[in-house]
Amino acid sequence: MIRQLDRKESPSITLPVRSLSNIYFDPEHRLIKIGDKTSNRYYMNVAHTKKFMQTMLVASECKKIIDQGVTTSIRDLYYALKHTIEDTRENTFDSQSDSDPILEDLESALNLLREELHLKADRKGYMAGAIKLEDSGDTINCARMGSSGWAIPSDVEPDRIKFAENSAEFALVIEKDAVWQRLNEDRFWKNHRCLIITGKGQPARGCRRLVNRLHTELKMPVYVLTDADPWGYYIYSVIKQGSINLSFLSDRLGTPDAKFIGLTSKDVTDYHIPMNVTIKLNKGDQKRIKEMINYIWFKPKPWQQELKRMHKAGYKLELEALSAKGIRFISEKYLPQKIRTSDFLP
Amino acid sequence: MIRQLDRKESPSITLPVRSLSNIYFDPEHRLIKIGDKTSNRYYMNVAHTKKFMQTMLVASECKKIIDQGVTTSIRDLYYALKHTIEDTRENTFDSQSDSDPILEDLESALNLLREELHLKADRKGYMAGAIKLEDSGDTINCARMGSSGWAIPSDVEPDRIKFAENSAEFALVIEKDAVWQRLNEDRFWKNHRCLIITGKGQPARGCRRLVNRLHTELKMPVYVLTDADPWGYYIYSVIKQGSINLSFLSDRLGTPDAKFIGLTSKDVTDYHIPMNVTIKLNKGDQKRIKEMINYIWFKPKPWQQELKRMHKAGYKLELEALSAKGIRFISEKYLPQKIRTSDFLP
Repeated sequence: MIRQLDRKESPSITLPVRSLSNIYFDPEHRLIKIGDKTSNRYYMNVAHTKKFMQTMLVASECKKIIDQGVTTSIRDLYYALKHTIEDTRENTFDSQSDSDPILEDLESALNLLREELHLKADRKGYMAGAIKLEDSGDTINCARMGSSGWAIPSDVEPDRIKFAENSAEFALVIEKDAVWQRLNEDRFWKNHRCLIITGKGQPARGCRRLVNRLHTELKMPVYVLTDADPWGYYIYSVIKQGSINLSFLSDRLGTPDAKFIGLTSKDVTDYHIPMNVTIKLNKGDQKRIKEMINYIWFKPKPWQQELKRMHKAGYKLELEALSAKGIRFISEKYLPQKIRTSDFLP
Repeated sequence: MIRQLDRKESPSITLPVRSLSNIYFDPEHRLIKIGDKTSNRYYMNVAHTKKFMQTMLVASECKKIIDQGVTTSIRDLYYALKHTIEDTRENTFDSQSDSDPILEDLESALNLLREELHLKADRKGYMAGAIKLEDSGDTINCARMGSSGWAIPSDVEPDRIKFAENSAEFALVIEKDAVWQRLNEDRFWKNHRCLIITGKGQPARGCRRLVNRLHTELKMPVYVLTDADPWGYYIYSVIKQGSINLSFLSDRLGTPDAKFIGLTSKDVTDYHIPMNVTIKLNKGDQKRIKEMINYIWFKPKPWQQELKRMHKAGYKLELEALSAKGIRFISEKYLPQKIRTSDFLP
């Protein structure tokens, strides 16, 4: 853009198109990806001028905080940039829903995570196991974190979080914190030489990026444990091949080699789970399952069987349902048997 | 009850009445408390029989997990107890909304926290600062937790979390995690010899109990930092004098000596905060402020002034609004000045 200005041209920026029309499943890398369609944003086009100005404001604020060596939240970014433009009654931004998409434009245009632009997303999730991390000069031993575990931050990029020492052999990603706590209390990670990670529902970006790094850098197999319901299977698919919203980041947020350890509707018979802890599928679930049957990433035969079986059986199952077999059933029977027999879905 | 059975009487249990009619503000202890009205639950009263049975089931499951030395979540408790009663089509519990109130009955009847019954509530919140904790044999140094901080668990009772070593002089409780992260990055806790704690919105029980313990056991002054809006002031009031729902636990969850450090609507003028980062009060806010003006615990004059000022000014303010004055304004100017001049609301 500086070159354009030097040449006295009207400045413009080229941005990848982030709408559904430019998003596809890449079968080679097994990731949801963004295509190569681009659009231009022109300063001298009245329909673009405001967004152009907003893009420049966000970009320059990012440069400022990077130069200062500080990080901030996307909400703070919005407040830091919000002001009334001199001699007008026009605000730079009216709400955070103006500045958030601009940031995603920049992330996709620069092929950078917002964490690399020193911006933080919401964080959630915890990890425990025999790994030592370095963060801002502190060494964190995830095997000595009591009942809490290590709280996964938003920014887990290699310049922030370093894997200092590891003796875990695989990573188990768990949908629910209550189950994580059960496994932590039973020292499952110690007995099975693994890391236990929970995203507390749909994992935040930090958690997905961490799983990606554990797999790509430390070569850890990744197993995902969720409820047996459409939402749980969706969580798994986002961990595995990324999401449509963040398709431009799939290569850093997705882990295509992840495997699904459970729960499945088949577990009800395999593990003799009493029928009264299953939950009847509602209409929304039925509809969602039918949609998922058609998703390209659920085409492998074992998933087709599972989805059809669930649809036919008419029930779903939460992880807590295993408690009907005893509080430690999940850590002493269910998971060890699944792992021993490699009873995974692809 | 065992004695009643020995005497061949119909068994019954006495429970505190937990409805609004039995809840009051205790001006001496400055806490929301439960009165001494009780009710009886009889096994031989058909209107009570199911609830009586449920109470016994929950109580015996608690005894079982305590005997086993394990803990579990309230959701797992529900699943562990849910079954169809033999020779009937009746379930012990139909949903978790059946078992949760039974647990609160037991907590209030026994005057015990659920954590003491080995049950865990949802956890959230983080802490950093110069304190060392012991948890399950691990020593956790909250001054060496990188960008994450220590994740506050649900159970922070003295037999689980021990205060091993402390050199912090006060505790700052922050509504928002983004602000906590700002202060952690700026090592505010180091420069000001304090603990920084966030509850991520309304603090969970574990976080409130921790604040209570820091104050009562370590004699730390507690300052609370929230948005300047009715929700922020409500968060403060719950930290300070407890809540109606958990009135039977106020003496362990409330911290009546807590002080309010900000934000206030007065800060807008005191700290020259630009008007375009304030937010117009909506009708719900206006109504809520009027209600709060009448709450007995907002009767102290400075609160009456603040609430009336906000109502009149017609705007509220989020913590992030301070970013309009610079990203480090909150840690380098705002909070230090508030603390130096003891500019608190009671």
